[in-house]
Amino acid sequence: MLCTDPSARMLALAAGYAHPRVRYCRASAESLSLAPECLDLVVSSLALHYVADYGTLIRRVAGWLRPGGHVVYSVEHPICTARDPMTGWVAAGEGTVWPVDDYARETTRAQRWLGTLVTKHHRKLATLIGGILAAGLVLTGIDEPCPDEQAIARRPDLADHRRRPPLLIISARRPERAPAEAPVTRSGGQGAFKRPHSDALTWLHPDSREVPDG
Amino acid sequence: MLCTDPSARMLALAAGYAHPRVRYCRASAESLSLAPECLDLVVSSLALHYVADYGTLIRRVAGWLRPGGHVVYSVEHPICTARDPMTGWVAAGEGTVWPVDDYARETTRAQRWLGTLVTKHHRKLATLIGGILAAGLVLTGIDEPCPDEQAIARRPDLADHRRRPPLLIISARRPERAPAEAPVTRSGGQGAFKRPHSDALTWLHPDSREVPDG
Repeated sequence: MLCTDPSARMLALAAGYAHPRVRYCRASAESLSLAPECLDLVVSSLALHYVADYGTLIRRVAGWLRPGGHVVYSVEHPICTARDPMTGWVAAGEGTVWPVDDYARETTRAQRWLGTLVTKHHRKLATLIGGILAAGLVLTGIDEPCPDEQAIARRPDLADHRRRPPLLIISARRPERAPAEAPVTRSGGQGAFKRPHSDALTWLHPDSREVPDG
Repeated sequence: MLCTDPSARMLALAAGYAHPRVRYCRASAESLSLAPECLDLVVSSLALHYVADYGTLIRRVAGWLRPGGHVVYSVEHPICTARDPMTGWVAAGEGTVWPVDDYARETTRAQRWLGTLVTKHHRKLATLIGGILAAGLVLTGIDEPCPDEQAIARRPDLADHRRRPPLLIISARRPERAPAEAPVTRSGGQGAFKRPHSDALTWLHPDSREVPDG
């Protein structure tokens, strides 16, 4: 398994979870260069809303997957990233609502997060799923996880996440045979990385454009 | 082509567009009973948010489609149907925002529309697309149509539809061979209708539960 993150601090934390079959390397998702059809599974957690060119990255991921291989990713939900600037709940009547605005304007959004200003890329749902299909992948699942009543009983502070979905999770697979009408782009294997030790890739937090260190 | 609508008034309007290859009949989407694998294309326009049991209907549609056949439908966007009760834009600061709330509560929503109260069914995006996948269909497209700048120049009143998506359009196809892991349910052909004159079906406005008239 190959795990990548552009943050040296994240990789330092990961060093506490060393495992002989896991290789960590410092790289952003966009800077990775891997051999064609070298991976069975690509997992990305809350990272792709930091990536400027989503369509190109998904096509490259599709090229890295072996036929039948899978990709699963989570992103901040388009409902949450739409309004520019991004804000939280707003007052409406005697309560609050989640504000949606600027939905069709797929540009960057600045957000203050953990004391710093981060830049996210708002994309329509149709763009996220359309990029999967345009890469020749088959959509296999979609989820908008929300806490259930039991979870809210334990953690009342989670209740707002039933009022608007915080996350979107998408899974897809590369067809066993590449469909003739949508050939999968292959990256050409001019990679900075040799073939990973194993056959899965996770992006822990590729939110910057630092270059790979390996 | 078979066109169905539960409204006698809509069918009276349709009579003005008679065509030898088009057959109109009065029926709701849910009450239709058709032979297995009799259709190449099913089209539904802004109707499925009136249907109580979406998952069952999509499985029945999948059974009516010939292998390789397509379904395309539009619904009111979940962003628009979420808040209970459904409302329009709300004031926020010096402007307005589109209010989202109650997103995970997939129940009915009452809405005043053209002077009457209509009942819609709010569903999460994950439920809409998940129903497609659960029926053994392959997602082929998704769109959230919004007016472009040229359209807004001609029709400034359309500008708000760039701020939040009014519609969701989904297309899918039945695989050429039914996948072994998700057999398509077949309705059994005990139909009130004979095989339609042609091989496409449209639902004009199936928003009630009236029974077919023949």
